[in-house]
Amino acid sequence: MAVYTDVSDQELEAFIASYDIGALTSFKGIAEGVENTNYLVHTDADPFILTLYEKRVRAEDLPYFLSLMEHLAARGITCPLPVRDREGRILRELAGRPAALISFLEGVWIRRPDIVHCTELGTALAKFHLAGLDFPMRRDNDLSLPGWRSLFDDVRGAADGVIPGLHDAIAGELDFLGAQWDTNLPVSVIHADLFPDNVFFLGDKLSGLIDFYFACNDMMAYDVAVCLNAWCFEPDGSFNVTKARAMLQAYERARPLTEPELDALPLLARGAALRFLLTRTYDLLNTDANALVKTKDPREYLRKLRFHQRVQSYRDYGLGSD
Amino acid sequence: MAVYTDVSDQELEAFIASYDIGALTSFKGIAEGVENTNYLVHTDADPFILTLYEKRVRAEDLPYFLSLMEHLAARGITCPLPVRDREGRILRELAGRPAALISFLEGVWIRRPDIVHCTELGTALAKFHLAGLDFPMRRDNDLSLPGWRSLFDDVRGAADGVIPGLHDAIAGELDFLGAQWDTNLPVSVIHADLFPDNVFFLGDKLSGLIDFYFACNDMMAYDVAVCLNAWCFEPDGSFNVTKARAMLQAYERARPLTEPELDALPLLARGAALRFLLTRTYDLLNTDANALVKTKDPREYLRKLRFHQRVQSYRDYGLGSD
Repeated sequence: MAVYTDVSDQELEAFIASYDIGALTSFKGIAEGVENTNYLVHTDADPFILTLYEKRVRAEDLPYFLSLMEHLAARGITCPLPVRDREGRILRELAGRPAALISFLEGVWIRRPDIVHCTELGTALAKFHLAGLDFPMRRDNDLSLPGWRSLFDDVRGAADGVIPGLHDAIAGELDFLGAQWDTNLPVSVIHADLFPDNVFFLGDKLSGLIDFYFACNDMMAYDVAVCLNAWCFEPDGSFNVTKARAMLQAYERARPLTEPELDALPLLARGAALRFLLTRTYDLLNTDANALVKTKDPREYLRKLRFHQRVQSYRDYGLGSD
Repeated sequence: MAVYTDVSDQELEAFIASYDIGALTSFKGIAEGVENTNYLVHTDADPFILTLYEKRVRAEDLPYFLSLMEHLAARGITCPLPVRDREGRILRELAGRPAALISFLEGVWIRRPDIVHCTELGTALAKFHLAGLDFPMRRDNDLSLPGWRSLFDDVRGAADGVIPGLHDAIAGELDFLGAQWDTNLPVSVIHADLFPDNVFFLGDKLSGLIDFYFACNDMMAYDVAVCLNAWCFEPDGSFNVTKARAMLQAYERARPLTEPELDALPLLARGAALRFLLTRTYDLLNTDANALVKTKDPREYLRKLRFHQRVQSYRDYGLGSD
């Protein structure tokens, strides 16, 4: 939760007037989005989200993210759509920050996803991957293997202070993944951060996806592995194979996984667990106590990593024999 | 800025279903309100504010605040209106907290009020006081002289660590005010915290008042003195007598101040400055660094107190000779 950058009423009124969206009637900072500052803006026409991009998002990546939203929306993926100002621009500046006005997406995120939500997610993820296949821009995943090594360099000295034994656990896993990581699987645009708070529902129906600020070009099955981690474990740490099966079967109805993708799932799930273990450890060690941000517990992802280390094959994720 | 209490989608959907306001389409925690947790809730009918009352608000005071909003709205004061559920209740419980659903008030608060805003404020404040005269409930101002003494007891040991000399400054002022404080001035309901962030505007027109959680029965002229402090100083600390004159003249067009009220204004302004100096000092010393709240600078109110100590008469606030 965060509002890092204050915008004055005068700045905002002038900004809104440069769009053809009616007059400003309300704006409130919202306590969502760890990376950026978000305001919920009402005009006499519609609600909008105004995002001010903070330092952790690289300005040169913004055209990729914003164009991706337009690309996906044009292909029927429900997601927020950047609004063009009277001069046709989607990327602007406000209060000294890169800024974009984005359409408001109805829906609420599900605090405790059930099987029906995992099914909806699987379908939406596959459609997202298919829609991304012809997206012409390119962005590397800076939180893949080389990024993980770099994060480990930043935290290695303090890791055991976060969780005893964490240093060796990460070092060993990095060695293992470094020898095995398979980059020959099918690629597309991946979301790379499709946690429950980035997926909106109206009732039991998925109403849209948000927050594309980790999106990049990478292996589609890695995105599936991120979702296995984010959606299919219970609060007590146990893996819910019924949810995983529901998600994977729904995914495969829209986009069947190839045999090499299926075989790589346990490895990719280890990589995805390590990615969030590393960033959570980094954030815990580097978040200023005054930064108005709640940090998340790295232990959760160490436990998930341990689970995937014991997995024998993709069948352990609930998919039937082939 | 704060969301102290998380509400799950399931809890909220069940809560909203107990009102006749349409189906939930969105809810987002908003980064406003230092004391309570606020969510902006959209249904397919309207937007609403959902407030969860945190520990600093006494549950037994909530009927006063909520009834006051209904009383004021019935008398034409634009303010949020508590919504009644299907059983007619306005005070509910949600996520273990007292909670109320309140109508959404359009408008934005003015970061740097100008003369026109001070004029609007003066009119609205007088009308608020007049509308409160026949409000039948009663609540003492727990942040008046006895409350200040109690706050000073809490901070006296650490005050000089906040600002050198602060202990003696507060002690001396409390002695002075204790001997002079006049409780025989006309009383009504006062807002007691009518800072710019609690006053909404659409363009240059005041669109409503919010946040009645310090409201109480006390001297109307004390409320005027709070606004002199909150609206009529510039960011550099200087007093803007033009703004003060505009606010006071507008107030007097709707409700003329009595001669004893005018004479007491410098004293009341000292008391109001001391009140915010004390609460800001207390908050600075008692806010957990992890509490996701930005504390405000007490120095600002020490400077304002020094200003009012040098004031000779109410004429120094811009009112002409009588």
